[in-house]
This record gives sequence, C-alpha cells and structure tokens, in this order.
Amino acid sequence: MITSPISQLMAALLLLSGIASGQTKKLSGFPDSLAAAQLRLETQFDQHLSSANIGATIKELASQPHHISSARGKEVAEEIKRRFNSYGWDASLATYQVLFPIPTERVLELGGPKPYKALLKEPALPEDATSGQAGQLPTYNCWSADGDVKAGLVFVNYGLPEDYDYLQRLGISVKGKIVIAKYGRSWRGIKPKVAQEHGAIGCIIYSDPRDDGYYSGDVYPKGAFKNEYGVQRGSIMDMVIYPGDPLTPNVGATSEAKRLKREEAPNLLKIPVIPISYHDAAPLLQSLEGPVAPDDWRGGLPFTYHIGPGTTPVHLKMKFDWQIRPCYNVVATLKGSKFPDQWIVRGNHHDAWVNGAADPISGIAAMLEEAKAIGELAKQGNKPARTLVYCAWDGEEPGLLGSTEWVEDHAKELQEKAVVYINSDNNGRGFLNASGSHALETLVNEVGRDITDPQTNVSVLARRQALDALRAATPKAKKEKLARQSININAMGSGSDYSSFLQHLGVPSLDYSYGGEDAGGEYHSIYDSYDDYRRFKDPTFDYGVALSKTAGHTVLRIANAVNVPFDFRRLYETVNTYASELSDLSNNLREATAVENQLINDNKYALATDTAKHLAAPALKDPVPYIDFTPLQNALAGLDSVTQQLSARKQGANSEAVNKALYQAEQQLLYAGGLPNRSWYKHTLYAPGFYTGYGVKTIPGVREAIEQRRWKEADEQIKIVSEAIVRLSGYLQKHAL
Amino acid sequence: MITSPISQLMAALLLLSGIASGQTKKLSGFPDSLAAAQLRLETQFDQHLSSANIGATIKELASQPHHISSARGKEVAEEIKRRFNSYGWDASLATYQVLFPIPTERVLELGGPKPYKALLKEPALPEDATSGQAGQLPTYNCWSADGDVKAGLVFVNYGLPEDYDYLQRLGISVKGKIVIAKYGRSWRGIKPKVAQEHGAIGCIIYSDPRDDGYYSGDVYPKGAFKNEYGVQRGSIMDMVIYPGDPLTPNVGATSEAKRLKREEAPNLLKIPVIPISYHDAAPLLQSLEGPVAPDDWRGGLPFTYHIGPGTTPVHLKMKFDWQIRPCYNVVATLKGSKFPDQWIVRGNHHDAWVNGAADPISGIAAMLEEAKAIGELAKQGNKPARTLVYCAWDGEEPGLLGSTEWVEDHAKELQEKAVVYINSDNNGRGFLNASGSHALETLVNEVGRDITDPQTNVSVLARRQALDALRAATPKAKKEKLARQSININAMGSGSDYSSFLQHLGVPSLDYSYGGEDAGGEYHSIYDSYDDYRRFKDPTFDYGVALSKTAGHTVLRIANAVNVPFDFRRLYETVNTYASELSDLSNNLREATAVENQLINDNKYALATDTAKHLAAPALKDPVPYIDFTPLQNALAGLDSVTQQLSARKQGANSEAVNKALYQAEQQLLYAGGLPNRSWYKHTLYAPGFYTGYGVKTIPGVREAIEQRRWKEADEQIKIVSEAIVRLSGYLQKHAL
Repeated sequence: MITSPISQLMAALLLLSGIASGQTKKLSGFPDSLAAAQLRLETQFDQHLSSANIGATIKELASQPHHISSARGKEVAEEIKRRFNSYGWDASLATYQVLFPIPTERVLELGGPKPYKALLKEPALPEDATSGQAGQLPTYNCWSADGDVKAGLVFVNYGLPEDYDYLQRLGISVKGKIVIAKYGRSWRGIKPKVAQEHGAIGCIIYSDPRDDGYYSGDVYPKGAFKNEYGVQRGSIMDMVIYPGDPLTPNVGATSEAKRLKREEAPNLLKIPVIPISYHDAAPLLQSLEGPVAPDDWRGGLPFTYHIGPGTTPVHLKMKFDWQIRPCYNVVATLKGSKFPDQWIVRGNHHDAWVNGAADPISGIAAMLEEAKAIGELAKQGNKPARTLVYCAWDGEEPGLLGSTEWVEDHAKELQEKAVVYINSDNNGRGFLNASGSHALETLVNEVGRDITDPQTNVSVLARRQALDALRAATPKAKKEKLARQSININAMGSGSDYSSFLQHLGVPSLDYSYGGEDAGGEYHSIYDSYDDYRRFKDPTFDYGVALSKTAGHTVLRIANAVNVPFDFRRLYETVNTYASELSDLSNNLREATAVENQLINDNKYALATDTAKHLAAPALKDPVPYIDFTPLQNALAGLDSVTQQLSARKQGANSEAVNKALYQAEQQLLYAGGLPNRSWYKHTLYAPGFYTGYGVKTIPGVREAIEQRRWKEADEQIKIVSEAIVRLSGYLQKHAL
Repeated sequence: MITSPISQLMAALLLLSGIASGQTKKLSGFPDSLAAAQLRLETQFDQHLSSANIGATIKELASQPHHISSARGKEVAEEIKRRFNSYGWDASLATYQVLFPIPTERVLELGGPKPYKALLKEPALPEDATSGQAGQLPTYNCWSADGDVKAGLVFVNYGLPEDYDYLQRLGISVKGKIVIAKYGRSWRGIKPKVAQEHGAIGCIIYSDPRDDGYYSGDVYPKGAFKNEYGVQRGSIMDMVIYPGDPLTPNVGATSEAKRLKREEAPNLLKIPVIPISYHDAAPLLQSLEGPVAPDDWRGGLPFTYHIGPGTTPVHLKMKFDWQIRPCYNVVATLKGSKFPDQWIVRGNHHDAWVNGAADPISGIAAMLEEAKAIGELAKQGNKPARTLVYCAWDGEEPGLLGSTEWVEDHAKELQEKAVVYINSDNNGRGFLNASGSHALETLVNEVGRDITDPQTNVSVLARRQALDALRAATPKAKKEKLARQSININAMGSGSDYSSFLQHLGVPSLDYSYGGEDAGGEYHSIYDSYDDYRRFKDPTFDYGVALSKTAGHTVLRIANAVNVPFDFRRLYETVNTYASELSDLSNNLREATAVENQLINDNKYALATDTAKHLAAPALKDPVPYIDFTPLQNALAGLDSVTQQLSARKQGANSEAVNKALYQAEQQLLYAGGLPNRSWYKHTLYAPGFYTGYGVKTIPGVREAIEQRRWKEADEQIKIVSEAIVRLSGYLQKHAL
C-alpha cells in the first residue's frame, strides 16, 4: 500500500502519464492499433530537435534589425526560404504590396517655465551587443497620423472609455487637448482611438514603471525590466475593424488589387500619436496640476499624479513616409502522401520591430526546428498523410499584414482545404499557453500530456494544471480545478497571425507559446535582443524545443489522423459556459444599474463625495431590460444532443468526406454579415474586443451589445449566434453522423 | 404631486428630519411631552458654540510642543483646568506618576560602499510657523528598548505574521537581523513585536510614499501629504496586553502604587526600534539584494524593492532616559440636579507628540466648547439631571496612560456610577464616525439625525448613510444600505482613551469624530500644526462645532433622559451578525485549508512556481474541525427573546434602579478571567486584535482562537461568551423588565 505523500505523488504522476497501467495512450483520431506507431514517430521527431540549434537560429536571425521592408527583412525571409528548401520542403516567397509608414520627423516638447525636449531614443548599452546598430526603426506607433499640434495635456490613465467617464465627472474635457495615457489594460491601439473619439488632437502613450519598469524588478541591463529609456513601439491600426493592409480590406494586396485612398481607410487614425519612455513622460506628468489622479490611475513615478488639464503647451509633431512596400511571406509545403488537398497550416511571423529575438524569432526558430525534423522524417519515408503548409509571415507587427493578405488572397482554397491553422509568436521559459478553437481542446490536452516540461519533469499539461489550480480565485474554484484531469484552452482574441484564419474564414485554429517565467520589459524595444533572450527568456533554449514538440506533435497528429481529431463536445461545453456568462452579465448589469441609478437619484453621490473635490455623480443609465436568451438556450440544447451522439458514435475510420465535414464545420459558425460595424470579423464565437483590442470577447455580438448597452442589438445578435449554432448542429447531423 | 428629482429629494430630506409631518421627533428615553423641551435645550446649547472660538483654542493650545511631562504640557493642563472653572465647572488635576522614556541617543547608519547616516530629523519650514520650535520630542517610537546593534537588514513588508510566513517560504530568517517594515496595515506596535517573536534584534519602521506620501497627493507644505522628511512618532507599547503605565497594570499609578520592575513589564519590548522618513529609508532599501519583493510588498519609491538579507551592516543605537514622570489629567465635574451619582463621563486627551493641532487639540477644543456651552445653560438654570464628568487626559500618546490610570484608580466608583463614557480625539472635515457599545446605536442615530452637516445641509446621519451606501462592496449590499434608515456604529478596538472604560470595566462607551475629507501626512509629526490644520483639516472649524454638537447632544440626552437610552435590541442584532461571521469564518477556513493542503500535497505549488524563484510551498496546516456554535446560538436565542420583550415594553418612567440596571448591564458581558494571555481585557465582545493592534476583534476570544487555529481554545471561548450573554439576558430579565 502506498502511503507517503511522495509515493502518492509519484503514483498520481504515473497515472496521469498513462505509464503505470501499461496501456497504450489514447490518441484521438487514431485507432489503438495505430496510436503506438504515431507515438513512435513523434519520438523520432523529438530526436531531431536541438536546443543548441534553436539558440543559434535566434542568434542569427536576430542579429540585425529586420522590420518589414528593410533590406535585412528581405534577407531574413530569403534565409528562411533557403532553410525550408534545405529541409526538403518546397518553399517560395508570397509577396504582397502593402502600405507601411516610416517616420521622418518626431518632435515632442514641453514649453513653459521648465521646458523639456523628449529624447525619443533608447541608448545603446555595452551589455547588449546589438543595441547600438544602424537600421533600427525609431520609437514610434505605426499608423499615427501626420500631425503638428500644440495644446495643453490631460492625463487619461489607461485611456479607456471608463477613464473618460471619470474625466466627465470631473468636468475635464480632452477636446482640443493632447492626452497622455499609460500602456496597459488594453491593446495600445484602443487608447488613441478613444482619445480621438473624445476630441483629443494628439496622444502620447508611455510605459509607467508601475506596469513596465523598476516596480516589477531590476531594470535592463542589470535585470530584465524596462529601464527609464525603454520604449514600446507598436501598431495602433484599429485592427478590431479589420487587420492587414488598410488599403485592401477583404482582398489580397497584390500589385493589381483595388486600393482605398489612405483617407478612406476606416481603421486609420486622424491624430498624431507617439510612444515614450518613463524618462520622457516624467517632466510632462510633473507639469500637470488640477485634480489628483485617483488611486487606480497612479503609477510608479516618485511624484503625485495630477490629471490636468495642463496649462503649459505641449508640442507634438509626427511626419511619415507613407509608401507602399513589399511584404515577403515565406510559404513552404510538404505534400501529403494520402490527402494532399487537406492542409495543416502552420505559421509564425518573421518581421520584428527591431532585432526581435523573442518577438518573433524565438517562435520562428522553434518552427524552423520542427520543419527540419519533419523534413528528416520525410527523408526517412515518413511523409505526413496530409499536406503541411508552413508559413513565415512578414509585416505582422504593423498589423498582421502578411498573413491577412495571404489569407484574403487564398480564402476560397483555405476554406476548402485547411484542416487547421497552428500559430506561434514569441516564446520563453514557463508554462504552456494554448488558445484556439474549442473543438481542438481534447487534442491539445493529449499533446500536452505527452510532452515533458524541461524544468520539472512532469508533463507540460500537469504543470499547466497546477498553475490553473493555484491561480483559481476561490477555494471552490481551486477544488474544481484540482478535480479535473484536463485544461481549458483560451478563446482567441487577436494580436497574432491566427486572426484572419479563424475570425475571417472559420478555419479551426490554435496558438501555442510557453512563458510566465520570462517576464521583462524588452517587448518591441531595441533590447529584445539575443543578449537579453539568453539571459532572461529561455537561457537553455529548452522551451524552444518544448514549443517545437508541442506544435510539431499537433501538426503530425492532425496530419496523420485517421479521423481528424475534432471534439465538438468540448466546443458545446465551452459555448454553454459563455451563454451562462452572458445571462449572468445581463442580470448583474441590471442589478448594478438599478442600484447605481438609485444612488444617483437619491443624491447619495453628492452627499458621499468630498465637497472639495468637485466630482459630479455619474450619469444615469438606461435600465437594463430582461433579455431573451431562449433562442440561444434552444440552439445549445440542439448542439448538446448532436455532440452527445457524435461522442457516442462507434469509432471507425471516417470517409474523406466526413473528415472534410469535420474540419469545415467551424465555418458554419460564421455569419456572412460579420459583427456590427466590423463586417470583416465573421466568427460568431470569437473576436477581439472593440474596446480591448487583443483581449477576446466570446460570443462578441451579444457580449458587446450588452456591455455597451445596446439592447435591440443584443436581441438581434442572440438570433444570429443562435442560428449559427443551429446551422452547425444541422451540419454535423447531416455530414458527420 | 411632487415629481421632479429635486422636489423628491427635498421631500425625502424633510421626511428624514421629521419636519414634514409636523410631529415632534422621537427621542429615546424621553416621553413625547418632554422631547420638545430637550430639543429646545439642545438648540440653546448650539447657540453657544463658536467655530471662531474653536479655531482660537486650537491655535493657542497647539502653539508649543506639549508632550507628557514637558513644561508646556503642564501649562496646557492648567489652562484647561482654568477654562473649565471659568465655565462654572469644578475642575482639578488628577495626577499620576508614570514611566515615560525620552531618547538621549539615536543612531541609524548604513555601512558598506555607499555609507549613509540617517537624518532622523524633520526640517523646519517657513510655511509652518511652529515647525522650528525648541522643545520638540525627537522622532522615535516610545517604549523602544535601549540597544546598540549592528546587523544585516531584511525588508519585511508591513511586518505582520503572514509576511514572515512568506519569508519562511523563501528560506529567509530574520534571526539576528534588523528588520525594516512599512507603516500601515496594523497598529505600529505589532511590527516590532512580531519581529522580536521571530528573533530580530532591531526594527526600523518607515513611512512609504505609497501609503503616506506623494502617492496620495502633493506633499507638505504644497499639499497635505507627507514629505520625504516627515516621520510618524508613536507608541509601540504592547497595548493589546494592557495599556497605561507598564509598571502598574490593573491599579492606578499613584505615588505609593506597587510597581513592577521595568524588565518585568510584559508589554515592553526587548529590542531597539526607530521610525524614519522615506528619505532615510531609501538608501537602506536600495542596499538590499536577494529576492524581489512580491507585488503586495512593493511601495512607491522609484526603485525595485528587494527583500535581502542585506550584506551591508546596519547600525542602530537607541538610548533613553527612563524616568517616572507626572501625568496631569484634568477632571471637571458639573453636578447633576436629580441623579448626582449617575455620571456621564466625557473625555479627550490633551497631550501631543509635538504641537498636535489635530491630534488631540482639535478634539480638546470641541470638548471645551461643549463645556462652555453647558456651563452657560447651567448658569441659566438648565443644569443637567445627571452629573457630568469632563476629562482632559494626559499621556494618551505613549499608551493611554492618564485615562487608564485614572480608570484603574476609580474602577469601583465608575462601575457603580458611570452611565456612559464618551470619547473624542482628533477631528476634521468630513463624515461622522461613531463607534462604541451597540446598545447605544439607536441613540447615536437620533443624535446624528438632528445635526446638520456644515457643507451639505443634510443631517450628518444622512451624509454618513450616503457614504455607507456608496462604499458597500456589492450591488446587493448597496441596496441593503439604501433600504435602511439608520447607520451601524463600529465596534471599538483601541487607540484612544475609551479602552479602559469599555474593555476593562464594561462602562458603555462611544467615540466620535468627523473626518474623511481631511487626509494628510501630519500625523504624529512636527507638521501637525495650526498652520497645517487650518489649511487642510477643517479650515472653517465648522466640523469642530459639529463634533461639539454631536458629543454635547449625546451628553445632554443621556444626562436628562427619563429612561437612560439603551437599546439592547441593537446589541442583540449586532452580536447575532458577529456569530454568523464566526461560523462563516470557520467554514471558510476549513474549506480553504483543505484545498490548500491538497495543493501542497499534490505538489501543485512546486509545479506552478517559477523554478528560478526558489519559493517553497507553504507549510501544511491542521485541518479545521467543525466547531460547535450551538452554545452561542442558544445564548443569542435567549437574548433575542429578552430584548424583544424590552422593546415591546410600554414606556413609562423607569425607576432609578431600572436605569442603573440598564447602564450597568454591559458589565455582565465582562469575563473576570479576561482574554487568553491578556487578562486585563475583560469584555467578551470587543477588544483590540492581538495582531492588529488598534483594529477591533469582535467576540475576540473566539475569533482569535479560530484565526490562530487554536481549536480547543475556540470551544472554551464559545462557552465563555455564551455564558456572558446568558448572564446579560438573565440580568435584563430580572432588573429591567
């Protein structure tokens, strides 16, 4: 009898990994008779992976700045192509012509009694070999408008709609002002968008040391965190309208594509924007008087944060060279031995803001390592049954340009052939992060179960489960996590190249990374370098290998599966929780609105507020009606029934038609009309939030209608998503049962 | 028909103040026939109050440093006595002989490559007229031990038990080290006590700008918040064992009292302790390496907080002049016209750490203004029916010395005669704060109902209700607050002179202040000055008048009531919520302990923690048994029944015996044996927390036994409090029904 905690632990781990019982592990999509062979293949695949090689690739590809349209950017694309071909793949460049602005003039100055001219420059460091190189893009936010403005400054916290609600209570308008917002809490592009919506004429975004600097740990180069001069570059295209080349929505940006005029592009801003360091932000913030910023607004700089409006004029001038430039995707194929017209698409971008050792080269290096290993297997006669399409995207940083244009250009073919799209981006030491289509959740669990974490020698699944259990908010939630044998994958928002596959075309998608023990402040700065990476991100490059295994096993399992491993039962269960969330959301909002309105009407705000603070009560809000969720509940009851039948079905080998139906089924969840005000996004379950950016909104049509208090739209959107679910159920019933 | 929101509001306010209906307001303890006369008396009382006079008193009494045993301290006592006598009271000094240490040597230095000698000095400021005066006590923590130690430093966050649990997970011991802790989260005396329990040989306490400095607002003298040199003085006597002169527990410190040797006093520390500014703390904290402090530990200084242990030695030397010194209480009486042996005791301390314009002179000024007005009423023939005893305490700052010694000296008489003790301390602009015996909650509500807030022209009760509603955590809780017509008063912990009355003798007590719009960093510093007060605390002194009214009306109502206004139904309801809290506490602790132990046993902590951080799992904890609350529930059922009968009783005039029984009833809640390990505290419902200090623990015997996981003690204490409640019920049944 096993009694000691250690023995119990070992027993549990053995059980989890399926070794104790001696049985062959279950692999979804494979009969037991073939599962062992697939697992052997994966073991062979693993033997071709080298952490040293991944480190060398990172060093080489991050050795020079290589943003889109730079000379080195093209060299990197060519080098990646060369490598694919050397591994036995058939690789070529897929080139598009996209708009990409490069700054020609950047000025930020404070006038008044303590004038200050912002440095707008990250210094070279002796500890970072590539930090002083020529060819770096300057610190800027891509898609800022040209502009030359001078105005008083207003500090707007994170620059989100609720921050402007608070400013309104203070009677402070940003109309005709320049705002200064902290990075964080939302995707950066939301901040200037909301500022512009409120009439601001310029926007400064800075990295506060509380969120991204010395507050979190020692700063670079002593530690990994952002030093006072570090700046986060980044795109501020309004990607939640559509990503990709802003001049060619919905179509590939080929030379001959019909283009919008720049002024017509609805996802481009009209005001100048610049990102700055906390060194540059401090004098600007210190120049402000007016109300003291409330607790939630304050940062880590050593002075009192005031809101303004500033009486000292701030001058912001931005000028860009707006050119159409080439965008070089690398597309490499390895033809499937049995089902050449069923594609497993895998991708990672190759362009960086500067050197990009972590973002994106750590992901590219892992992907190239997979391709090398798969090439070796192929050379030994183990070609995948389905076709593999490995893509290295250009122009991800400015707005998913390369992937979006390629997907739009090949939309019909992809909807026909793409079984799945598997994405990665940057990678580091830590825990498995997986997000994507929930019909693939079972597969992800099985993949994670079979990969050993480099540091702890348990499976990466077990390690993630431990993290999820520890992070759960309440004892009850922790208990539930402890009782589960599997993990949930996250829903996909945006921020990397899966967006067009999943949200525009309905191609089932996954995104993988490791991280959580690799915190730092190098993101989109000149310090995202090989020197930084090997000290702070993944010193042994073992998590590069873990990513290669995770994505590679996923690719190989789907490629070789007898039955493509979609588990719509997990999709049903997940959507069911979303429906509950929406119902709770509307009920909580109704209760909160009623009580807030009563507090306002009963004058409680006025009485409870410091009279010296001149803080008005919030505005009254429309009462929240009872919303009819029954169409959604009935649709889910139907999906419940169908997915139960699917799960109960005796597993034989699927016909090719059934496999095709299974991988195309997610397209039934698209709505041709798209989301309100952003028709490019067609998936009824997953989208980036209109006011969160990267952050996902699930069942976005309904959720955002409720959050933004558009009750009629909520009803319409419930109808749309319910019809999509009914369509999916009918489709599965007809084609897969 | 009234329809506009403004009209509705006015109607609601009128209704609340009882004016609209034309009826006389209900006054507990007064038949309707006498209520109007009492209200007229209070109106006359109000007419004698002058904000200008309060301002002048603050200016005069805070014009020089006047700590206990200083020459000016005695002058202040004499001046207060003189004033009482001039108002027609009979005032004299009640002098005790108490231990009070004054520093003779203070050294704090950092060695190593960047040596630093701490300033330990707040600079004089031209904007603050009294800040450069002679006679200021230096910055120190009173009751620090003498000591001369040199050791490495460890940063311990707020220095609470849970912080040491975290240090243990990191494998960091403070044994033989000097710790540096932030002010905040607990009473300051807890920090060195816990440090000493863990083997530290010295303790530094500093004001972090995140908690008390520029983070909150502009610093003094530009704004009210703590500048980089400001230091919070304060007592670190272990007052949760017993307050008062440490050499004379339980008895008055008269000249002839038997005294402990200083070494024997169980509430004195053995290690040296010093409070410092953030200017002085910065070099010490910056000298630390070792683990980065977790998020919850970090402050507002502009660098990364490390825990240490420091390798650079820190030198701390403290030496004191330990003398027995005189402690001058002023006691003024105004004899009752009908019940001279029933006393309404009212008090506020007069000693300050330095000038003490807010603490305590703002309270003293209001109390003197009351005494003046009551004296005027008496001169006009309106003497109170019961005797008033107004006390100005000395030596509150070092440890409630004056009040405790006087109470211990007059214990028997007070338990016989004291109807109530009404305390105040410092005061400022804002909201009514009331705490005390819950049998007085109804009275407090009626008093608050009849006093108009100086800024908003609604009652101070309505304003407090608004604040409570707005602050409630959830919509449900807000709704409940909105539905109530009354406020809850807080339970009393410690930190001012009510402690000995309530917690040692069972005299029903109240504490009043206004505040919440008077934030600042002057507390216990040289900047608690008249200049600071009139700029930032209560510029018009109108809240001084509001405090005079609040305490004065309370005094006059109890003094003149036909039936002393105790409402034990409110006590029952309050204790009932405490009992529910305790049951929830034990259930939640059981659930949390079980799941935490499972996380530890299943190795989830090890797997979920960054392997580079070397953070061990927490220690396993004993499972939480099911605790038998039925004795308490049965006791409360009995109190429910008795208090229902009391409330339903037809109100005639009480006999003197019944009134006496009502005001003495709270003594039934005392337990002669006192709390575990601190027998001085005898009240079974209210005590300062053993590890929170000022912060109250209700039903402390049971609550602390559960929190500190002593299950047998929890059972014993449930028995003790249940017996006390049964005793109270029987007593009320016998004497008051």
